[in-house]
Amino acid sequence: MSSQPASGRTKVVVTRDLGPDVMPLLQERSELDLVVWPENRACDRGWLLEHIPGAGGVLLMLSDKVNEELLDKAGPSLKVVSTMSVGYEHVDLALLAKRNVRLGYTPDVLTDAVADISVMLAFMASRNAKGTTSLVSRGDWPNATWSPFAFCGPQLSLASSPSQTRTLTAGFLGFGRIAQATLRRLLPFGFTHALYSSNPSSTPSPSQDSAYTKDFHPIQSVRRVDYDTLAKESDVVFVLAPGGEKTYHLVNEGFLRKMKKTAVLVNTARGTLVDSDALAKALREGWIWAAGLDVVEGEPNVTPDHPLVKEPRCVVLPHIGSATFETRLGMATCAARNLLGGVLGEGMQAELDLKGRT
Amino acid sequence: MSSQPASGRTKVVVTRDLGPDVMPLLQERSELDLVVWPENRACDRGWLLEHIPGAGGVLLMLSDKVNEELLDKAGPSLKVVSTMSVGYEHVDLALLAKRNVRLGYTPDVLTDAVADISVMLAFMASRNAKGTTSLVSRGDWPNATWSPFAFCGPQLSLASSPSQTRTLTAGFLGFGRIAQATLRRLLPFGFTHALYSSNPSSTPSPSQDSAYTKDFHPIQSVRRVDYDTLAKESDVVFVLAPGGEKTYHLVNEGFLRKMKKTAVLVNTARGTLVDSDALAKALREGWIWAAGLDVVEGEPNVTPDHPLVKEPRCVVLPHIGSATFETRLGMATCAARNLLGGVLGEGMQAELDLKGRT
Repeated sequence: MSSQPASGRTKVVVTRDLGPDVMPLLQERSELDLVVWPENRACDRGWLLEHIPGAGGVLLMLSDKVNEELLDKAGPSLKVVSTMSVGYEHVDLALLAKRNVRLGYTPDVLTDAVADISVMLAFMASRNAKGTTSLVSRGDWPNATWSPFAFCGPQLSLASSPSQTRTLTAGFLGFGRIAQATLRRLLPFGFTHALYSSNPSSTPSPSQDSAYTKDFHPIQSVRRVDYDTLAKESDVVFVLAPGGEKTYHLVNEGFLRKMKKTAVLVNTARGTLVDSDALAKALREGWIWAAGLDVVEGEPNVTPDHPLVKEPRCVVLPHIGSATFETRLGMATCAARNLLGGVLGEGMQAELDLKGRT
Repeated sequence: MSSQPASGRTKVVVTRDLGPDVMPLLQERSELDLVVWPENRACDRGWLLEHIPGAGGVLLMLSDKVNEELLDKAGPSLKVVSTMSVGYEHVDLALLAKRNVRLGYTPDVLTDAVADISVMLAFMASRNAKGTTSLVSRGDWPNATWSPFAFCGPQLSLASSPSQTRTLTAGFLGFGRIAQATLRRLLPFGFTHALYSSNPSSTPSPSQDSAYTKDFHPIQSVRRVDYDTLAKESDVVFVLAPGGEKTYHLVNEGFLRKMKKTAVLVNTARGTLVDSDALAKALREGWIWAAGLDVVEGEPNVTPDHPLVKEPRCVVLPHIGSATFETRLGMATCAARNLLGGVLGEGMQAELDLKGRT
């Protein structure tokens, strides 16, 4: 097989049917020879390796590894890998750069959906959503003893509070698009301060902080701080940094021990950023109040005997951060356009710059 | 017994221990003869009727009915009823007015906590929090089939969306303090319009609407509309009106049938406002997308066979809207101050105006 069969059409492989709203974008292009994994489950590796040879492009998912094996099978015809995800830890970037294969991904379109669920998880954790919803589900509401402080959690707002002496601080590990969209959502809840830590190699920047402080009016300050300060001063910590080796277990026992006893941890980024055993210990021993997780290291192999699923104050969602119809449609459309742009040698809606990745 | 025993002290009855942060406010007043229900459960009616005679004041909870029986037992010494709640549907207002007994309650202090949980429930409902958290709890994450649109719900935000053609409308049944605090929280999620209906006897007010529209900048418009319009145009409907006869089953089958198929209903006010059977039918038959409830008619007698608890897209919390440490402390403090002010004939922190209630 070659990328330009007798028909003159370019083969493209798609590892998931993207549904009736998006597939026509590809199907209607007569210059493409479209090969789509036919089942409603993750694509078999064997099937992918069998069909990739000679392809000019491949559109794939977070679960499909892009490594030497795949690129060798694809051969020199491959011009573009388009992943339907904002993350690219399943992709060997250096190898793509070396072989001049372009990479498309889907940033921006999922910012709102993930910011929404980050805020939701902060409140679900602080307000005991796990314990209280399961109390109702198992039939214990009629027997629950109301008392002035029953089911109480720490309050993550003070917008209408007459007292102006309290502060409320949001901490962000990573301060990219999603983190900033999350902070913006928190402003009318009355958060007074924001702290962030990002790419440890870059230096503090008071002018950047002052620009952020203005941008996030009426917050009192936005400050870049070291991990210790962020852990110590935050009432809620949002983990919103990229995955990968550099951020592995950024939230470990040392970090958790420094957090406030009333603080909440939210992870809507990647499971590898948080040491699950340390977090379970922190919750069990009351170092922090609660946690809300959309991602867990080792997912989806997370079962009821997992130490975090067992914790009554740990909300665990099955990685649904971007799961809204609008966002997934936007991601699928972006991935399809990236594939088309790459195959046809045109601009892509969102291309990762691979320079310096070798 | 009389309100001025030989000691010269005024008897006050308190139907719940308010904890070590609040009780000293009462205990340290030597002019009071303090009688406190000693157990950590709702006060027995028999105990209350036994101890109320001759009291100058009573501090009680939503579960303690203030009716003719209680007032007759109390006798003419009673100057004040202080309820630790923002609602007063357990209190016979006309009777209090007739007998010149003052009523203290606890508005304002719980505005933030209830607005927080209203926003939380809107997202828990739209983003399938009930189904997805229970999938993880029962061990089905490892077997869950990811697909581009699995677990998706409608998106209640469009802040970063490049397309400005979509609208997002929040509807409020009742537009008091909590509703307005809820709308304010929704602004950075990108809501474009707000609709409200309140006290049906008052007339539309374009000038009020225009003031609201300015106040809730950058929203495009805030409009007072009839129930039909509110049902038809809202992407999320917040039930935030007072309970009682006038609002009984305001959300009924007719209202629910007019709502959008992708809309979400949130009730953090009183269970009586929503017809539970109609809502269960609406969810079962897909008239609306989902619901998030902090209150259910007939609570706390809501068991796993309740039609709403059985619905996979109906989140049910056990009336924890005000359950944060900060808010409950504020409510208890306010209730104690109201009691003191009433008994001593001084100003109260929050007194309900009973004029015209006879």
